[in-house]
Amino acid sequence: MKSLSRRVTEIHPSMTVEIDTLAKRLSTEGRFIWNLAVGEPNFDTPVHIKEAAIRAVNKGLTRYTAPSGTQTFKEKVCEKLLKENSLAYVPEQIVATSGAKHAVFNAISAIVNKGDEVLIPAPYWGTYPELVRYCKGMPVLLECDIKDNFRLKAEQISKAITEKTKAIILNSPCNPTGVVYSNEELKSFAKVIVENDLYCITDEIYEHFVYAKERSVSIASLPGMLERTVVVNGFSKAYCMTGWRIGYLAAPEKLAKEIVKMQGQTTHHPSNISQYGAIAALNGSLESVFAMRQEFFERMSRMSEVLESIENISFFKPEGSFYIFVDVSAYYGKKTAGGAQISNSVEFCRALLDEQGMVIVPGAAFGRDSCVRFSFTASLPTISVVMPKFKEFVDSTVP
Amino acid sequence: MKSLSRRVTEIHPSMTVEIDTLAKRLSTEGRFIWNLAVGEPNFDTPVHIKEAAIRAVNKGLTRYTAPSGTQTFKEKVCEKLLKENSLAYVPEQIVATSGAKHAVFNAISAIVNKGDEVLIPAPYWGTYPELVRYCKGMPVLLECDIKDNFRLKAEQISKAITEKTKAIILNSPCNPTGVVYSNEELKSFAKVIVENDLYCITDEIYEHFVYAKERSVSIASLPGMLERTVVVNGFSKAYCMTGWRIGYLAAPEKLAKEIVKMQGQTTHHPSNISQYGAIAALNGSLESVFAMRQEFFERMSRMSEVLESIENISFFKPEGSFYIFVDVSAYYGKKTAGGAQISNSVEFCRALLDEQGMVIVPGAAFGRDSCVRFSFTASLPTISVVMPKFKEFVDSTVP
Repeated sequence: MKSLSRRVTEIHPSMTVEIDTLAKRLSTEGRFIWNLAVGEPNFDTPVHIKEAAIRAVNKGLTRYTAPSGTQTFKEKVCEKLLKENSLAYVPEQIVATSGAKHAVFNAISAIVNKGDEVLIPAPYWGTYPELVRYCKGMPVLLECDIKDNFRLKAEQISKAITEKTKAIILNSPCNPTGVVYSNEELKSFAKVIVENDLYCITDEIYEHFVYAKERSVSIASLPGMLERTVVVNGFSKAYCMTGWRIGYLAAPEKLAKEIVKMQGQTTHHPSNISQYGAIAALNGSLESVFAMRQEFFERMSRMSEVLESIENISFFKPEGSFYIFVDVSAYYGKKTAGGAQISNSVEFCRALLDEQGMVIVPGAAFGRDSCVRFSFTASLPTISVVMPKFKEFVDSTVP
Repeated sequence: MKSLSRRVTEIHPSMTVEIDTLAKRLSTEGRFIWNLAVGEPNFDTPVHIKEAAIRAVNKGLTRYTAPSGTQTFKEKVCEKLLKENSLAYVPEQIVATSGAKHAVFNAISAIVNKGDEVLIPAPYWGTYPELVRYCKGMPVLLECDIKDNFRLKAEQISKAITEKTKAIILNSPCNPTGVVYSNEELKSFAKVIVENDLYCITDEIYEHFVYAKERSVSIASLPGMLERTVVVNGFSKAYCMTGWRIGYLAAPEKLAKEIVKMQGQTTHHPSNISQYGAIAALNGSLESVFAMRQEFFERMSRMSEVLESIENISFFKPEGSFYIFVDVSAYYGKKTAGGAQISNSVEFCRALLDEQGMVIVPGAAFGRDSCVRFSFTASLPTISVVMPKFKEFVDSTVP
């Protein structure tokens, strides 16, 4: 057979998706797994959302919508963006998507031409550089050191800019680092972005999961940014709607129009039923989200306590998201109690799975092989039981 | 601002989607519209499917699945393909997608490299050439004349092949022409396809809507074809699940694996709830589908009767799908009763909307400007009322 398209064969699979799929498969096969890998809250979708979806099914509201979603969905998103993020959009600027990942894909596809450079702070969510490459663009990594608490500086953006630079992808609160940028930091980024006429894709899927005093700000709300920014968000994390595949983007009108055109030809609108669920989420209060945040804060504190008791690791205590990104490279070159030789994050995680039945994500998935990512989407009892196992695992390594 | 990506700006919007969106908007605004444009059955999703989806929501089966869909979904699709289409697949070869359109997109994206030529019989579903162009491939049209009843001949494939030819896209039963290829015809195509080592994407979404004696055959079931074919299908048409966005593809294992990788990074799996609905559809009988086919047959007969009574048009009485594709070019250069000058299919359809409130799709959407497409997804009473209006519209044109 003739060869397949390089566009697709050159994609790396989503390591987080692969690990989640592996963990779920092992569980189905009867193996007991402690899953601290998945970016999926262990809560059920709130009842009022489920009821709205069921009403839609019963009423037969299951037909084609416009490719950008229903008018009501888009109006509700506009209300939300104005109220919660101080962003003024009209429905023509909103595109309902099959999840936030799909929104990122649409945005990159509409912005990035062959050879365009796209700035991505690292560590990053693995999907960003893969999608840039899918579009024949060039990901340019802005490396953020754990010594700087993984924080990007405006000078790093300035220094990386060439005449080919087209866009930057920001993600605050950040997966995997837990960094939440302050208004001042975002202002310094915005200055460089505006001066250099870049597009900005800002993935704000974790906006409600902030544990520091300041809440998350959208860079799109800063002067000069609205006309160059695509705001990406969704319902998976805040409303425990991962499997519903519903998200959205807000963009300058011209860009939104191009994305709608593309979506009309590639996937059409996201599930109509999921749109009704999402409308109910936006009509409801943020009470369930705040309750979840409180719970996540306690889990994060418990997890941090154990991690702090381990001598040879370092980590940044997250200000937001539901991940802790931990530097475990002090154990590379060592041998586990089970006899495994560890020399990188993948081997570290594999040994941890084999010996403790514990699943976390190798830092390699985020462009930082010295680290591993813990998710605190698992319950507090689970975290209490499993973190000492992690400590035992690393403490029993030998040179 | 810097220019957007050519990949997307060069896409033409889906004209069928735009027209459906327009018709729905006009209806919402209070205008009475006779919609014979949309490829969406006017029936509700069968109750057992709705109940299965509601059970899934209530049970909280709303979490991430594997990017290719749940194991049960893929197993059920394998059973269906074996029983109904004599195709032997394993679950690893199945990818659940957010509708059949999404399956076509995934397949083209994984197969077509820049500069690759893709053969597309014309008239065609407008999405095919747009997706080939999105992937920087070159659509090569195989023009099928109404004098030949819009039928493709194997020689046309042979003649069009160059060293750049990578794939062919087939669609039987065909939207918009209603052609259903016989086993003999498909064999003649398969011979050329295998000899020239082409990939084949076969869109079989209308397979159950066949009004001729012979039922629809999958070209993938012919010798040498399975290893080079992507079978595309979905639930929108047969089970009235348009808004659920659920379809699938079946492909050689290597190709399926690449597509899963791509889907994991671009959209992830289709809605979990829709997957449960689709499983119920596959577990149920085809009774509702057969009842719908009978109803469609009667509608098609009624529509054909009126069309046959009009002197200056010609059409092919469909063997399958739910469309009639009608050559109205005898009216180009004429003036309507309302005073509109008609010189192409878009102007024809616009005048029909303005003067009779009737929506059909210009042939330009399918690469054949001499024609217009009628859909018989509207009810029999609607068709009985509206087709005489169409006759009146064309009969009252003046030179």
